[in-house]
Amino acid sequence: MFEIALLGAGRIGQVHARNVAAHPELRLKYVVDPNSNTAEHVAAQTGARVADLAIALGDAAVVGVIVASPTNQHLEQCLAAAAAGKAILCEKPLDLDLHRAMSARSALTGTGIRLLLGFNRRFDPHFATLKERLDGGTVGTLETLHIISHDPAPPPAQYVRSSGGLFKDMAIHDFDMARWLLGEEPSEVHAAARCLIDPSIGEAGDVDTAKTLLTTASGRLCVISNSRRSGYGYDQRIEAFGSRGLARADNVLESTVSVWSSGGMASDVLQNFFLDRYASAYRRELAHFAKVIANEASPAVGYADGIAALVLAEAAAESVRVGAPIRPRN
Amino acid sequence: MFEIALLGAGRIGQVHARNVAAHPELRLKYVVDPNSNTAEHVAAQTGARVADLAIALGDAAVVGVIVASPTNQHLEQCLAAAAAGKAILCEKPLDLDLHRAMSARSALTGTGIRLLLGFNRRFDPHFATLKERLDGGTVGTLETLHIISHDPAPPPAQYVRSSGGLFKDMAIHDFDMARWLLGEEPSEVHAAARCLIDPSIGEAGDVDTAKTLLTTASGRLCVISNSRRSGYGYDQRIEAFGSRGLARADNVLESTVSVWSSGGMASDVLQNFFLDRYASAYRRELAHFAKVIANEASPAVGYADGIAALVLAEAAAESVRVGAPIRPRN
Amino acid sequence: MFEIALLGAGRIGQVHARNVAAHPELRLKYVVDPNSNTAEHVAAQTGARVADLAIALGDAAVVGVIVASPTNQHLEQCLAAAAAGKAILCEKPLDLDLHRAMSARSALTGTGIRLLLGFNRRFDPHFATLKERLDGGTVGTLETLHIISHDPAPPPAQYVRSSGGLFKDMAIHDFDMARWLLGEEPSEVHAAARCLIDPSIGEAGDVDTAKTLLTTASGRLCVISNSRRSGYGYDQRIEAFGSRGLARADNVLESTVSVWSSGGMASDVLQNFFLDRYASAYRRELAHFAKVIANEASPAVGYADGIAALVLAEAAAESVRVGAPIRPRN
Amino acid sequence: MFEIALLGAGRIGQVHARNVAAHPELRLKYVVDPNSNTAEHVAAQTGARVADLAIALGDAAVVGVIVASPTNQHLEQCLAAAAAGKAILCEKPLDLDLHRAMSARSALTGTGIRLLLGFNRRFDPHFATLKERLDGGTVGTLETLHIISHDPAPPPAQYVRSSGGLFKDMAIHDFDMARWLLGEEPSEVHAAARCLIDPSIGEAGDVDTAKTLLTTASGRLCVISNSRRSGYGYDQRIEAFGSRGLARADNVLESTVSVWSSGGMASDVLQNFFLDRYASAYRRELAHFAKVIANEASPAVGYADGIAALVLAEAAAESVRVGAPIRPRN
Repeated sequence: MFEIALLGAGRIGQVHARNVAAHPELRLKYVVDPNSNTAEHVAAQTGARVADLAIALGDAAVVGVIVASPTNQHLEQCLAAAAAGKAILCEKPLDLDLHRAMSARSALTGTGIRLLLGFNRRFDPHFATLKERLDGGTVGTLETLHIISHDPAPPPAQYVRSSGGLFKDMAIHDFDMARWLLGEEPSEVHAAARCLIDPSIGEAGDVDTAKTLLTTASGRLCVISNSRRSGYGYDQRIEAFGSRGLARADNVLESTVSVWSSGGMASDVLQNFFLDRYASAYRRELAHFAKVIANEASPAVGYADGIAALVLAEAAAESVRVGAPIRPRN
Repeated sequence: MFEIALLGAGRIGQVHARNVAAHPELRLKYVVDPNSNTAEHVAAQTGARVADLAIALGDAAVVGVIVASPTNQHLEQCLAAAAAGKAILCEKPLDLDLHRAMSARSALTGTGIRLLLGFNRRFDPHFATLKERLDGGTVGTLETLHIISHDPAPPPAQYVRSSGGLFKDMAIHDFDMARWLLGEEPSEVHAAARCLIDPSIGEAGDVDTAKTLLTTASGRLCVISNSRRSGYGYDQRIEAFGSRGLARADNVLESTVSVWSSGGMASDVLQNFFLDRYASAYRRELAHFAKVIANEASPAVGYADGIAALVLAEAAAESVRVGAPIRPRN
Repeated sequence: MFEIALLGAGRIGQVHARNVAAHPELRLKYVVDPNSNTAEHVAAQTGARVADLAIALGDAAVVGVIVASPTNQHLEQCLAAAAAGKAILCEKPLDLDLHRAMSARSALTGTGIRLLLGFNRRFDPHFATLKERLDGGTVGTLETLHIISHDPAPPPAQYVRSSGGLFKDMAIHDFDMARWLLGEEPSEVHAAARCLIDPSIGEAGDVDTAKTLLTTASGRLCVISNSRRSGYGYDQRIEAFGSRGLARADNVLESTVSVWSSGGMASDVLQNFFLDRYASAYRRELAHFAKVIANEASPAVGYADGIAALVLAEAAAESVRVGAPIRPRN
Repeated sequence: MFEIALLGAGRIGQVHARNVAAHPELRLKYVVDPNSNTAEHVAAQTGARVADLAIALGDAAVVGVIVASPTNQHLEQCLAAAAAGKAILCEKPLDLDLHRAMSARSALTGTGIRLLLGFNRRFDPHFATLKERLDGGTVGTLETLHIISHDPAPPPAQYVRSSGGLFKDMAIHDFDMARWLLGEEPSEVHAAARCLIDPSIGEAGDVDTAKTLLTTASGRLCVISNSRRSGYGYDQRIEAFGSRGLARADNVLESTVSVWSSGGMASDVLQNFFLDRYASAYRRELAHFAKVIANEASPAVGYADGIAALVLAEAAAESVRVGAPIRPRN
């Protein structure tokens, strides 16, 4: 049994807490959260106890730390956990500020540092199967990629204001998927974006609709489509066009039930809430973390991936500002 | 160019007339119909002329006759056309009365008789592709078969009264499909049927809902599901279960357009009218008839198939009457 | 926290053990199994301890018992657990012998007895959604039902010999689904069955392929298709035809990934292993059991359902023997 | 009956010839083609006669002219037919040279000129249904559009050399679809394109893979994906994202037959040849032309649409050259 400390017991922290409890080789020992009610609640459900950061990191029995606190604490907590020699699973992003995030490079990438960055979609069974098909050569050589990533409904403008903007807050996942599937760094980013959905998002200085075009050095092309509101659910699809065909991952529906009536065939609704849609991704991410702790695997996605995705997000935002393609600098 | 006479210019006769007009090797010469308005109309559209049966059959230039008259005239007209040495495309059924139909055996099956019976579904591209897959061994040895054949909406009770009943009027197509796909004669028929949709159909002495179970000598099993009203369109599906998998033909939709909304994904409606659904089947059936006329093909489906389907229809009706399986006698 | 004893720590017992461990309100206290290795292993994984039946049932803190032992012990253990006042989740079937099972009626249905019978498919989210659609009137009044239930591959003949036969071992689930969805008892059963797949199954006195036709008093018709080997995976589909349309539950695939190549579009494989296909059904079944224990729900499926399904299974087998429809006697 | 002259009896001319023959209100009178064999063949099949352009245009009974000659003759023949007062159906493009095409504006757009430009996809039942859904407000206000237009296999490099390039030869259809569905002119065009498929296409000075991003003045965004070789067939899909959902048109398969095997579910192949895929589009286009001739409809797509699509194609090509977005000038 590996003992784990959870930093941050909010919505996503609770997902990790439950998954730790259900994992045969992990045990949640500490819950650290300034909100003591939340901390107590999560601790009670999982047999853990509430502690402060110093105690959690100071306990040599704790071998893994999950950083699920607000974004602005990620970096600091990662640094502390790394200094204490713990394996780390940190929710993305490392930080909203690229320069701050880059300043931690040596501390978070040195020998013996094990930092798994929470780009959970890499662990989604559908996207992971897609990746396997591509790696297995099922569709020949990958040439172009389409990523559709539309949220069911827009967040409140207040959230938008502190979110880092559509590209850092939402498209960041898609930049990671693009890099992972393309197997190559984009060398050019061109984005067109507008505020078409909610004027208050525009007033908050952000866009809500974007199409981003990535080009790699070898000439691979990738289109990312983002919308803060689909109107029909959580649209998470990828199409990978190769020299011998197309591999694609489709949306997940609530059930396989369909109804045929005089109006045609109607499926069940899309799995809309991201914690439902990606429930198995979070479980599989944690299972991978258990292997990282056990030194049976290196982190499949880490610090460098976090930086690279941020760089692309900044390039996309700049492309929108200047109305021209941008060469990202990593 | 082969010259054709059309007997019966009603709805289905008009389908054949248009298909003859569009066929590069066929020309419609005569339209024969007691309703002179209808006959004139069809003749005008296709460059044919109105004639009576004697003239049409007496013209040596006419090499093919299409029998699309009311059912009770089929047999008589087939006999006349056969006697005149014409190739015949006769709409199903040969006759509603099995014994009458059987009495014509020698006249309609002798040397030189070319009678193509209009079991149009054999020419449907979807079902024909299914048959090719089965013949090609794609799913191994066929073991069991499911045929779903539900009409969009029930006919008027008045029609039902003279229709010969659900098994002869509607399931007759499915009995033919079953024989064709099973590649073997059913040796036992068990049917359960009810009047669940329209009481006036029951008052007319018929049923509107039936499940029929066929068993062949070698042990193949086939289920036919019939309903006079699906509520969702013209449901025409077949599933063929083999030793290595399943081959199936699905419904045809009006278009590939779908709409995703908060309620899920909704397809376009089913192609509902049988003349739309089977439009290409009728075209391909006629193309086959052209080959029969040219002596490039023997009729793919003929007199014996018509009799065999009628025998199964009578066995199914008897099974419902007696509440037990029936061994059909052909 | 409700404390639970598990009787039987084999494959299905282990599924329940893991689900108990993951449930926030349940705790596994005892594992009872004559195979001490298995018992120790399951106990270690879940924090339970190994005990014999007397201790487990004698502990007043244990409020629920899960019977997951071999079929021939189900009845005896249910009786003991009921006598001890425990809530019971018993794997189906109650017993392979209908008369033995019926003899326990008074002991297992009296006041205060809470017996949840493990017809897990009722808890499958797909079938449960289908049931909701039917109950909600989405397709009007239910008229007919098609249940397809084909296993991926046949069991060894040795298993078949002690299985009770295809109808009691495999179709029993489908009889339960039929009763549940029809909302009415079948009043007639007609089955046609053959040994088409594996001669050794025939030598063991069983069939491997069956089509069963159920008719209810009100005239609803239901077809159940069973095969011990589909060749393409675990085919578990239901179509419910109503007066205003069709509701259906389709198969579950391993992922939403598809590959388009020169041969067409190919989906991922079916979820084949029943413990995968029905993993969420087992979780939801256990969640329901927790509510039964908490007296927040009555068992959704119980003793009478077990008997009724056995009665249908025996009627189907008899119908095959005599080659005629059978009226089941409950 | 309206009498028609066909200019150009090649592959696409023959499609029109057959459709004229099958149309109840049109009759093909003349076939004009410098290749007399081809002309005779088409005339024989349709009851038309071979003539030269002067005779065809000089015959007052001819009310409609179909221009299906090589591209470099389109403009000249349109001008002649317009001068002769005929209604015109002209295959796209008007001309590969935008300036030449624009110079004909006054001659081809004056009062009484009826020029239907052959952007056949507007008449495709799938895309027409999609347009109806959008116009009907089914998905609210259109916001963004994805058009996928991938050919099955690349053309010979020799064809590429005289084709005008990917944007004028292939994407021209997609530019027309974009304008039609967006209901607004694109005000900015950014394209990224590469030669990834066939180096000889690159040597011919063209690209074979492109992603084009269109932005309209109101902020609508459109992505067009083009590939000269899909590897899986003729991929022609459109997704239209609106404020209340998504409407999409999918690919057309050869049949509804699918095969389920141990590898999963495999559909039939895509309808690959464009004359098959768009067979009904050509028929419906011609039916519209019959209405234009009868003065029952104005041409649904005409000279201005041809110019606008060419302008976008040139802008896309220029965007690739300069590596920046281009504002098209119409």
